[in-house]
Amino acid sequence: MKAEIINVGNEVLLGNILNENARYLSEKLASIGFELLCHKVVGDQAQNISQAFQEAWNRAQLIIFTGGLGATVDDLTKEVVTSQLGLPLEKNSLWEDHLKAIYKKVGIGLDEKRKKQALVPRGCTIIPNDNGTAPGVIIEREDKIIILLPGPPEEVKPMVEKSVLSYLKGKSPWNVIKTHVLKVIGLGEATLEDRIRDLIDIEGNPRVVLMAQPTETHVYVTVKGMDKDDVDSILKEWEGKIRDRLGFYLYGVNEETLEGVVANLLFEGNYTVSTAESCTGGLLADKLTDIPGSSNYFLRGIVCYSNQAKMELLQVPREILDSVGAVSEETARAMVENIRSSSSSHFSLSTTGYAGPSDDPDDPVGLVYIGLGTPQGSYCQKFNYWGNRRSVKEQAAVSALNLLRLYLEGHLQ
Amino acid sequence: MKAEIINVGNEVLLGNILNENARYLSEKLASIGFELLCHKVVGDQAQNISQAFQEAWNRAQLIIFTGGLGATVDDLTKEVVTSQLGLPLEKNSLWEDHLKAIYKKVGIGLDEKRKKQALVPRGCTIIPNDNGTAPGVIIEREDKIIILLPGPPEEVKPMVEKSVLSYLKGKSPWNVIKTHVLKVIGLGEATLEDRIRDLIDIEGNPRVVLMAQPTETHVYVTVKGMDKDDVDSILKEWEGKIRDRLGFYLYGVNEETLEGVVANLLFEGNYTVSTAESCTGGLLADKLTDIPGSSNYFLRGIVCYSNQAKMELLQVPREILDSVGAVSEETARAMVENIRSSSSSHFSLSTTGYAGPSDDPDDPVGLVYIGLGTPQGSYCQKFNYWGNRRSVKEQAAVSALNLLRLYLEGHLQ
Repeated sequence: MKAEIINVGNEVLLGNILNENARYLSEKLASIGFELLCHKVVGDQAQNISQAFQEAWNRAQLIIFTGGLGATVDDLTKEVVTSQLGLPLEKNSLWEDHLKAIYKKVGIGLDEKRKKQALVPRGCTIIPNDNGTAPGVIIEREDKIIILLPGPPEEVKPMVEKSVLSYLKGKSPWNVIKTHVLKVIGLGEATLEDRIRDLIDIEGNPRVVLMAQPTETHVYVTVKGMDKDDVDSILKEWEGKIRDRLGFYLYGVNEETLEGVVANLLFEGNYTVSTAESCTGGLLADKLTDIPGSSNYFLRGIVCYSNQAKMELLQVPREILDSVGAVSEETARAMVENIRSSSSSHFSLSTTGYAGPSDDPDDPVGLVYIGLGTPQGSYCQKFNYWGNRRSVKEQAAVSALNLLRLYLEGHLQ
Repeated sequence: MKAEIINVGNEVLLGNILNENARYLSEKLASIGFELLCHKVVGDQAQNISQAFQEAWNRAQLIIFTGGLGATVDDLTKEVVTSQLGLPLEKNSLWEDHLKAIYKKVGIGLDEKRKKQALVPRGCTIIPNDNGTAPGVIIEREDKIIILLPGPPEEVKPMVEKSVLSYLKGKSPWNVIKTHVLKVIGLGEATLEDRIRDLIDIEGNPRVVLMAQPTETHVYVTVKGMDKDDVDSILKEWEGKIRDRLGFYLYGVNEETLEGVVANLLFEGNYTVSTAESCTGGLLADKLTDIPGSSNYFLRGIVCYSNQAKMELLQVPREILDSVGAVSEETARAMVENIRSSSSSHFSLSTTGYAGPSDDPDDPVGLVYIGLGTPQGSYCQKFNYWGNRRSVKEQAAVSALNLLRLYLEGHLQ
């Protein structure tokens, strides 16, 4: 089935934001066997939307719009598409009640302008949106499918995962298409490619491709077939082959995140953790507390930027700071041992390093020591990261989480 | 002059990489006054390229292609475009010499396949490429301009900066085009629109448009003209009008960020700050430490998720926790007052609330109290956010930064 994606919005057209929706939807559509013809970005004006829709209608069976479903006067996607199809817009009372509840919560009345978002094309299927005020819409018409989604990627992604993909899978020429995403940390894309080069196949079945992410690399394995058991067994075989090559660098599959994997290991052991951060500045605690229920394992965090804070809050000895300095194995260990004992947590993590930037090329920007405190004693690892301040913070926080994961999984001895 | 961008390449179409070229070129074209109609991504097949070219030809005067200029058999952009225009491809000896030199350097012979990159359309202008083997091409034909650029963004950007922009500026009907981005926090997009509705004009000059971001809203003001002083004075006048309507909700302009504005206010007063976070879990400290030099103002941060940590690390009285609970104005104030005095910082910020999620619809997910400690005493504000766990954390951290900004700018009394 041929598909086309149309992103509506001046902010994308004028280059103020990256077209994350197009990348995301393209990848998802490819993973379930749709043949994508083109994606297109147009401005908010009715004429542009209408022309793009007409062009897509002439060649695609599936047309997905994102953007232009908001409450402002220049949100016109729904209006243009329904007028071109000759479909009336009707009030959906359930969604209007939902809008009332949302706006009441934030203390804003539901005026006529905002009520516009409860208007949907007659006979369409509504796609609930848990993270915004605009519902998505599926229209089936003359053997074609038109799907309207909102603009913000943080709304689009959950809607696609929860509703759109399962709907589209039912329309695919394959009975079964399954993708597993194998998530790898600590191996660069090129090294990872060397390890599984003979398995990579961008157009085959199974399709195996690599996708580099800022702090990790993902291996996508997609199998298409007519029989569920066949697909499952091929997928299992290929996943096994890749797992063998990657060992403990592979930390999770599909929806799993590093924070989530660490959280589950902590939940399972009824373990607690505390953090003492210098260069990551709170980012490590932020990641650990992104998981619902994290109050069960996360006891406390200290962000100690200054030497004084390191001495007062974590009893890092002045002699260490004066002799080897704050960015050292000794400091990382003192931090992680103190926070573990003062908080009575099972585990603790510390970071100390140079996040930069610096005008002096001799400054060791990117040098970070990560400490791990455990009931069996403390560990310390030294890293040299490349990148800007934010990137060094991100990489250091991820390395710290990964160090705890490796310990809890029994890979550190 | 109307423009259209066409990106050729399966790797973008299938979502394996983000369309960075489209974002970059869109922004550049808008900045020199071209009216962008659409950007489009198509696969490598000749038919797709040809159809996209035809559609663009029918409505645009400037058509920019990226991708499909490589040496492999599925690089077809140059071939399709010239065949459609009836232009022959001819060997460019200078570029062939250049290719010979490059390939000699990496120890590869210049075979017939690679020589293809030295073929250019008759009568075109070559755009040198310092970072790759494919030259760019400018074709002028029937009052239209067609520009072919390679695919990799690291080749495209220098070519555009060095050659394409100066060429296109000569074709632009305007001498000067300037854009200011006014950044607004604490007003939703719809409310902001109500305040400046009469000034918003998507197609006018000045052009004024709104762009919603996850925790703020941006107002883009673009002025085009023939004289620099005229443009500057119109821009100043319009910026002033919008500032008057928005007051202290407007926190910055162009590259300024909320963290950066707060950091500058702290730098200017030689002030220090400390944080005591519950529901934001370290994110507030993370934002404060994203600014280079933040060790000058950020003294320490405490992440106290548990009641025990709140009592031990911040001396929040047990009576408060037992009577009104951890999510309360009293707790927020106790946290912010204690961290300020124990760290001897000028200012302090605290957060306590329910980030969620919860299965119980009666749970007040999104309720957050933010405390601000100052030499003149403490403040507390209550917020009700809507969104998922991450979104509540983000909004709360931004509100805390904004509260400090409002105080330092003299808007809180």
